[in-house]
Amino acid sequence: MTGKLIGVGTGPGDPDLITIKAARAIGSADVVAYFAKRGNASNARAIAADHFRSGHIEEALDYPVTTEIHRHDNGYKDQIQGFYAEAAERLATHLKAGRTVAVLSEGDPLFYGSYMHLHVRLAPHYPTEVIPGITAMSGCWSSAGLPLVQGDDILTILPGTLDQQELSRRLGDTQGAVIMKLGRNLPKVRAALNEAGRLDGAVYVERGTMSNGASIALADKTDDSAPYFSLVLVPGWSARP
Amino acid sequence: MTGKLIGVGTGPGDPDLITIKAARAIGSADVVAYFAKRGNASNARAIAADHFRSGHIEEALDYPVTTEIHRHDNGYKDQIQGFYAEAAERLATHLKAGRTVAVLSEGDPLFYGSYMHLHVRLAPHYPTEVIPGITAMSGCWSSAGLPLVQGDDILTILPGTLDQQELSRRLGDTQGAVIMKLGRNLPKVRAALNEAGRLDGAVYVERGTMSNGASIALADKTDDSAPYFSLVLVPGWSARP
Repeated sequence: MTGKLIGVGTGPGDPDLITIKAARAIGSADVVAYFAKRGNASNARAIAADHFRSGHIEEALDYPVTTEIHRHDNGYKDQIQGFYAEAAERLATHLKAGRTVAVLSEGDPLFYGSYMHLHVRLAPHYPTEVIPGITAMSGCWSSAGLPLVQGDDILTILPGTLDQQELSRRLGDTQGAVIMKLGRNLPKVRAALNEAGRLDGAVYVERGTMSNGASIALADKTDDSAPYFSLVLVPGWSARP
Repeated sequence: MTGKLIGVGTGPGDPDLITIKAARAIGSADVVAYFAKRGNASNARAIAADHFRSGHIEEALDYPVTTEIHRHDNGYKDQIQGFYAEAAERLATHLKAGRTVAVLSEGDPLFYGSYMHLHVRLAPHYPTEVIPGITAMSGCWSSAGLPLVQGDDILTILPGTLDQQELSRRLGDTQGAVIMKLGRNLPKVRAALNEAGRLDGAVYVERGTMSNGASIALADKTDDSAPYFSLVLVPGWSARP
């Protein structure tokens, strides 16, 4: 009798943007696991805290400190692969003992989520369920009240890490777009949008589902500072009344 | 004192995949509005039924019957624009009277949702809030347990209505893809995936978040029948361990 792995989407930040199914799964799990940067509180845990109960076993999966190593460096890759392998082993111990393990995942577990690294290691061996969550981008366009795509629109989701030419080419060849991973990429992203003729209409959203969140037209944003988890939304809906 | 418009995402189908915030907004609204095909029960209403209370005013927004007119026909466009304008007026009457109006929207309100047509007409004039919902595609990749995109992957969301060459070009130029609006487009979509070298790995999902839902490798699906709201998922995550 093995336990069950449940990937649980906690949504983008507002604790009320968790689903009823996710809240219930957290409350009834034997073990609740969550990722965090070493020395920091886990965002996912904070979002889901209302649904924890006193009998939970908690497994904090602390990322190794790797800020000094570039993410394309082999040293980084080895370290992070080792971390995921070890985290999966820790959870496997609970699964073998018949415990239900809920892994919290900010946003949606299978959409750019860290949970994916555990899923591919554990789902082939244990009964697994994934409970979707509201993505950060969905939280952002909702808080900005920005209709994004409609009808036969194409939507392209792009990392801001692409080079300017590549960003520009793709922004000129889609109706809607979401650009993630801004951070220091913002000036390049702005230039690519301009080059593609898509700067008008682009909206910058910061902390979209937090109480101190804000959205403004990107063309009106005069500075180049952007937290890594801010987004640019390019609405594609050209068929407005 | 005007009321407030709330676009409420009900998620993809499973009533437990509604957020706590959406459930609460429905329960406390004065008016609950929902779209339906004339003569059919509203899917969104069925999903959210647990949160209705007896004092609700209900506004059923029944689409005009237009199956005999092609959707690119001007007659269709006029009829549907007239329908949205009239629906917005009906809700505006409640808003002017100070009532809170929750408009149910399957999936996420601002992501290919009918609510968008009301939003663009009403949000400029009345206080408005949008509560995001789990999208159909997110429900589908979760029920299929399919990790979709990770890290710097690009995700492209495509309507199956594009022609084969265009589908093939775009499928060959992205990591992850979601193809919506299958229906009779399935043979063309399959051919485009094959042409782009992306048929292997593609997963067909039908009724993803219903109890009778199913997913299979598209390469293993031998028939060409697909409900309009089925999806094809093309996972982009090449960095698996």
